[in-house]
Amino acid sequence: MATIPLGRYLWERIKQVGVSTILGVPGDFNLDLLDHIYDVEGLRWIGNANELNASYATDGYGRVKGVPGVMVTTHGVGELSALNGVVGAHAEQVKVIHVVGQTPRLFQEKRMLIHHSIDSDPDHGVYKKMSKPARVAEAELWDAQKAPAEIDRVIRECFIQSRPVYIFFPLDIVAEHVPAERLKTPIDLSLPFEAKSQDTAIEAITQALGSSKNPALFVDALTHRHGAQDEARRLADKLKIPIFSSGMGKGIVDETHECFVGIYSGKVCAPGVGEAIEGSDLVLLLGDIPADTNAAFSRKLRPETTIKINPTDVDVKGKTYANTHIKPLLARLAETLQPMSVPMPQLPPPQQDLATIDPAKHITQKWIWPRLASFLQPHDILIADTGTASYGLAAVPFPQRDVTYITQTYYGSIGYATPCTLGAELARDELHREQGMPRGRTILVTGDGSLALTVQEISTMVAVGVKPIIFIINNGGYTIERVIHGAKQPYNAIPPSQYQFLLPLFSHPSPESSFWRVSTKEEMEKVLEDEALRAPDSVKIVEVVMEVMDAPEVLVKLVASRGPAFEKYLRENGFME
Amino acid sequence: MATIPLGRYLWERIKQVGVSTILGVPGDFNLDLLDHIYDVEGLRWIGNANELNASYATDGYGRVKGVPGVMVTTHGVGELSALNGVVGAHAEQVKVIHVVGQTPRLFQEKRMLIHHSIDSDPDHGVYKKMSKPARVAEAELWDAQKAPAEIDRVIRECFIQSRPVYIFFPLDIVAEHVPAERLKTPIDLSLPFEAKSQDTAIEAITQALGSSKNPALFVDALTHRHGAQDEARRLADKLKIPIFSSGMGKGIVDETHECFVGIYSGKVCAPGVGEAIEGSDLVLLLGDIPADTNAAFSRKLRPETTIKINPTDVDVKGKTYANTHIKPLLARLAETLQPMSVPMPQLPPPQQDLATIDPAKHITQKWIWPRLASFLQPHDILIADTGTASYGLAAVPFPQRDVTYITQTYYGSIGYATPCTLGAELARDELHREQGMPRGRTILVTGDGSLALTVQEISTMVAVGVKPIIFIINNGGYTIERVIHGAKQPYNAIPPSQYQFLLPLFSHPSPESSFWRVSTKEEMEKVLEDEALRAPDSVKIVEVVMEVMDAPEVLVKLVASRGPAFEKYLRENGFME
Repeated sequence: MATIPLGRYLWERIKQVGVSTILGVPGDFNLDLLDHIYDVEGLRWIGNANELNASYATDGYGRVKGVPGVMVTTHGVGELSALNGVVGAHAEQVKVIHVVGQTPRLFQEKRMLIHHSIDSDPDHGVYKKMSKPARVAEAELWDAQKAPAEIDRVIRECFIQSRPVYIFFPLDIVAEHVPAERLKTPIDLSLPFEAKSQDTAIEAITQALGSSKNPALFVDALTHRHGAQDEARRLADKLKIPIFSSGMGKGIVDETHECFVGIYSGKVCAPGVGEAIEGSDLVLLLGDIPADTNAAFSRKLRPETTIKINPTDVDVKGKTYANTHIKPLLARLAETLQPMSVPMPQLPPPQQDLATIDPAKHITQKWIWPRLASFLQPHDILIADTGTASYGLAAVPFPQRDVTYITQTYYGSIGYATPCTLGAELARDELHREQGMPRGRTILVTGDGSLALTVQEISTMVAVGVKPIIFIINNGGYTIERVIHGAKQPYNAIPPSQYQFLLPLFSHPSPESSFWRVSTKEEMEKVLEDEALRAPDSVKIVEVVMEVMDAPEVLVKLVASRGPAFEKYLRENGFME
Repeated sequence: MATIPLGRYLWERIKQVGVSTILGVPGDFNLDLLDHIYDVEGLRWIGNANELNASYATDGYGRVKGVPGVMVTTHGVGELSALNGVVGAHAEQVKVIHVVGQTPRLFQEKRMLIHHSIDSDPDHGVYKKMSKPARVAEAELWDAQKAPAEIDRVIRECFIQSRPVYIFFPLDIVAEHVPAERLKTPIDLSLPFEAKSQDTAIEAITQALGSSKNPALFVDALTHRHGAQDEARRLADKLKIPIFSSGMGKGIVDETHECFVGIYSGKVCAPGVGEAIEGSDLVLLLGDIPADTNAAFSRKLRPETTIKINPTDVDVKGKTYANTHIKPLLARLAETLQPMSVPMPQLPPPQQDLATIDPAKHITQKWIWPRLASFLQPHDILIADTGTASYGLAAVPFPQRDVTYITQTYYGSIGYATPCTLGAELARDELHREQGMPRGRTILVTGDGSLALTVQEISTMVAVGVKPIIFIINNGGYTIERVIHGAKQPYNAIPPSQYQFLLPLFSHPSPESSFWRVSTKEEMEKVLEDEALRAPDSVKIVEVVMEVMDAPEVLVKLVASRGPAFEKYLRENGFME
């Protein structure tokens, strides 16, 4: 094979960097490109129900596998439908490659009035201009001889910047031949940093730690996104200083770690946690996302007592060291730093006994989040959609090691979590098959409001045979919004669904034995002990009926902290006593 | 009431111009704005399952009611999810107002890291830059004193340009007060044209018609979009010359009209239709969309024998007359032109007897489209999603008057039709209640592939009590794509659904008596005669099981006309004999 079609070149490269599943939706300008997926051993196509769902699934795949999620859409209609999910991946720094099957080059040049266009003299490139802020790099394939290098370049950019890139693939260039020789040289995926800058930064960090009496480690989400989770864990093991996590950084370092103190979410923390970290004279903050929904606005961390290890630079007490990368930097720190003798904060036990947590027979917000946390097993992936689920779960400790927690707390696009679950399951399955990693389970917790946006992706889950456990919090709509505004307004309600028909609709092989509806703690306990749920062999759904006007304590406290008018509103609507 | 909140001002204006339903999805940056909907008598909020669906429903509402469809989304996540549908409305020239609830102005100014943002120093305005090509005008509300005039301006632009406009509404400006006085003066919605230009154009048209021996009238979609349907009908009645329609222009002039000849779709027409219009020495072409999927590329119309009446200009045999508007222009033509004595083309009867159309017992593509056409009643709205439905239905005559036919044939975003049906039903219901127009029925024909993208909007239909009749063509996926490429490739298949569970899932009050599954003509005949279907009191669904490798003749012929390789492909895959 001296030459191969450019379409095949793309997929060979994609497979080489560790991607085994291509997601997306077929369309007449990408079908020829999809054909070449089947030419590559070990690469598979899984079509999604729509492009927005595809983008969320691709994000989920990228988060779990640590290599880019890859998605194909078609010109205009497809690429725009996927846009919100790609922007979400950008916001949350997830590796995503969005391949767009475009109209043939001649049609573009002649500005032909081809379907999926706009205006009477259509610029076929208008969509790629619109989506520009969604990406950090793009390859516009126009010249087949230059195209392989362009493809390689953007794949590299996706890895090193850990954000979306686009490849625009005109239909007629798919079949053009390019030399196969280039495939023998792997794409350079080495992370860019200057050794000298890194040395200087490490020196400054080491010095600062050396003069600290009670340092703390605070782990946030970008640590994971930039592939530095193992390094962060090694550093935590080595340093033996109190460990804190943000809501978005949950699970990067196990909450079972002997040094783990708690989730630091500004002024709404478990008792003692805020005081513990705010009393530290030096906080080593890894991979920070300083967003409102990551509780960053009410954190009390001063620049002069903070070291920030960001993805590509370091800030030591206000002084910036550029041209580093978090992954090699943490690896070096874990090697060179020495254990410190620091007293551990003595906090009240983080979790009440579930049996006494509240007297209600029905399922309450106070009870369900610790109960779901105790359902976790090692190696589980827990995915929470934005809403009461993400707030509720962020506030409870995970009593098992190696739990991966996924939420899209910064970008916060509701509906994200359901297709994300598909992508996460596919990636997890590949990690197991290809790399022998433990299989674990994937557990989705979504509200009824969030689920409605993207519910059809469950059909793909059933069809491809993945086996997540799905908890649907059925509380009559957008409870998180009710807490914020319009508690009793009709716009916060959604049409009711009878979820027992969901799996039958999507041709689940055993729908009766895969669905449960619970509205009391006793019922839920029984289901959580059921082996059919605990060790799922197919998609399982538990519908959890809860009260409309019940919300996680942490969410209510957050809103109440805005002032007396908010407190009054929350009391009047039964969210506070 | 000397002053009112700006939020209320918006909705009062929206109601004044004839809009009675606001669609969309609530989000924390638009809740305060939604509150004011309830202040306006006769205005209602109907929430959609997601924003893409909202945009399609809004488009459908706009098409049927003739005033803008209005939709509210939230900053970033919501506005981007809706984007594809808004671009579709732009491409197809539909009146849509997209109101985006934005972050408060102070947050925007300070570039705060608020949820739904991207980057570490977020420009909150990045999304409105991305969506710029989707609209013809925008109001960025920043100064409450200037805002009412801005709102009025873009509402006017939406009407006169018949394309989407955006209103960006920062959360904190909703409550600011503005003078109520302005509401007493209606927004100027008069269509802009120069009387003198119109006179000159009319003179040129009159002269050209006067020297024509066999003129023809050819009606295309923009006639409808720019509100000139009645005027086109009056002109058709007056002129008494042969009438043709494009696929997208179907139904603008009744196909039962005594002068109606047929659908002109270039080289793939019913026998005699192409020859008839191509033999005319003057074609009066109204509201043209010269797109590939409107069969424009194979039309044989020469500039020197064509008069084009476009939305805002006229082209008489190659000479352009600017500054006109199709609606007043057609009205004047209908007044001033005189009936012409033109021989009608003698064509074979357009429709075969259904009983003999093909011998198969099962439901075939050849049979179903004329059969569905004969199911129509006067005042029905027929909506077909892009795919075999839109190609099949475009090719059969509608045997009843006043049938509105909706497809999105130029933009062609599959999944469009299902939410569009919701919007169409809501608009139709309002036209009936508010203006006494006949109620009619709304009939959706969608493929299983298309339906999957937006299926959850059926839950909204059930919840709000609209009553469309939905035919689902279940043929195992994207048959239109199989005809084009990859007939047997797995990417053209979709996961199977058991549609009998769809209405139960969405809490339909009488699901058993509202669903039918048919796979033979006999079964389908029985259902089509059933009064429960014919006069629906709620959402009705008929699942029509059809063969995977069967496609409308017109679609197959179109693809075959691309050349011998395509013909061979079609024969090998059983699409042609």
